[in-house]
Amino acid sequence: MARILITSGPTRQYLDPVRYLTNASSGRMGRALAEAAIASGHEVVIISGPVDVSYPDAAQVVNVVSTEEMLDAAQKAFIECDGAIGVAAPCDYRPRRIADDKLSKTGSPLTLELVETADVIATIGAEKNDRWVVGFALETEDHRFRAITKAERKNCDLMVLNSPSAMNSENTEIELISPDGTVVGHFHGQKSEVAAKIFAEIQTQLIER
Amino acid sequence: MARILITSGPTRQYLDPVRYLTNASSGRMGRALAEAAIASGHEVVIISGPVDVSYPDAAQVVNVVSTEEMLDAAQKAFIECDGAIGVAAPCDYRPRRIADDKLSKTGSPLTLELVETADVIATIGAEKNDRWVVGFALETEDHRFRAITKAERKNCDLMVLNSPSAMNSENTEIELISPDGTVVGHFHGQKSEVAAKIFAEIQTQLIER
Repeated sequence: MARILITSGPTRQYLDPVRYLTNASSGRMGRALAEAAIASGHEVVIISGPVDVSYPDAAQVVNVVSTEEMLDAAQKAFIECDGAIGVAAPCDYRPRRIADDKLSKTGSPLTLELVETADVIATIGAEKNDRWVVGFALETEDHRFRAITKAERKNCDLMVLNSPSAMNSENTEIELISPDGTVVGHFHGQKSEVAAKIFAEIQTQLIER
Repeated sequence: MARILITSGPTRQYLDPVRYLTNASSGRMGRALAEAAIASGHEVVIISGPVDVSYPDAAQVVNVVSTEEMLDAAQKAFIECDGAIGVAAPCDYRPRRIADDKLSKTGSPLTLELVETADVIATIGAEKNDRWVVGFALETEDHRFRAITKAERKNCDLMVLNSPSAMNSENTEIELISPDGTVVGHFHGQKSEVAAKIFAEIQTQLIER
C-alpha cells in the first residue's frame, strides 16, 4: 500500500477582494485518480483548489485557494507520501500587487503586472529523492515536445499530456509519456475510465517498480 | 403578470485558451430572485454566466461566457421584458488581446493590458424607456455613496447594495437604496429569504406602480 499525494483543481490569484485569475479545471480528473488509487488499496491525500466536485470520503482533503497555498500544503503532505500526481492546474501567474479595495472603473485601461508563481510539481519533483512524481501537461501547440521538456524540468517519472478541451469536461484524451519521450499509453473516453488506465500504469511502472 | 429579465452569475474574460479573469459569483442570488418572481406568477428569462447552480425549470435560461455575450443576450431579451434585475457580476475588464495559444512561462513578469467592458446594466438602463431596472452594487469602501452614484449612472430604479462576503455564500446582508439615496430596506439572512423580501419591494414599488 502506498500513500499518494494528488493535487487537483484550479487555483485563484486575486487582483483585489473580488476579481481573480483562474482556469476551468474542475477537479474531475483529480477525483477520478483518487478513486482509482483508493480502489487499488492506497491512501490518498488531495490538495485541492476551489472546486464543486465531491472527493471520495476515504481521501484526506486539504482545501486551498492560491498557488502559494497549494505549494505549501503539497510540500507538507509530500513528507508522508510515497509518490505524487500533479493533476491540478495551478495559476502560474499572480498579480504583483493585490489591491485592498475593489478596483473602481476609471474609464481608462488598466495595466496589470503579473509575476510567475512557484511551480508546485517542479518543487515537489526537486525534493522527491526516491519517491515518484507524475505530472500533467496541458499544451495548445508543440504538444509532445513541450510535455517532454516539462517532464525533465519538473523531474517527473511520467507525464500525462492533455489539451484544454479536457478542462471541465466529462471526457478526455491523453498521452502518457516517459521522461525519455516514449509514448507509453494513449487513452481516451470518460475521465473515470482514463484515470483507471493511467493509474494502472502508475501502479506497475512506479509503485511496484 | 410581468416578464422579467435577470442577469446572474459571473462572466469570464479569457487571456489565452486556458486562463481567464473572473469572480466568485455563484448565481445563487439570481436563482433565488428567479424563484421569488416565478412564485409571484411572473415570467423569467435568465442570462447567466458559467455557474454550477440549477435555475428553476420554469425560467428560460440563456448561457453566456463573456461580458460582451451577456450584454448582447440581455439587450435581445430585454426587448420582450417589462423590467430587469442585474444580479450578475460581469467582469468589467477584459484583456486587450486574447492569445491564440496558451502563454508559456518565460521566467519574466508579464504585463497584461486590460480595457473596460461595456456595462450591462447601464446599457440596459439607458434603453429602458418606461421599463424598470434594478441594479446590484458590490463595494468594499464608501458603500452607500458609491451605490447611489451607480444607481444614477446606470439609470436604476432601485439599487441593492451588498459586500464581497455575499459572493458564493448561502447568506447575505443587503441594503435596498432608492435613486434619491433613501435606504428603503435592510435585509439579512439566507439568500432565498432575502431574495423574497427584495422581490416583494420590486413588486410593490416597480411592477404595481
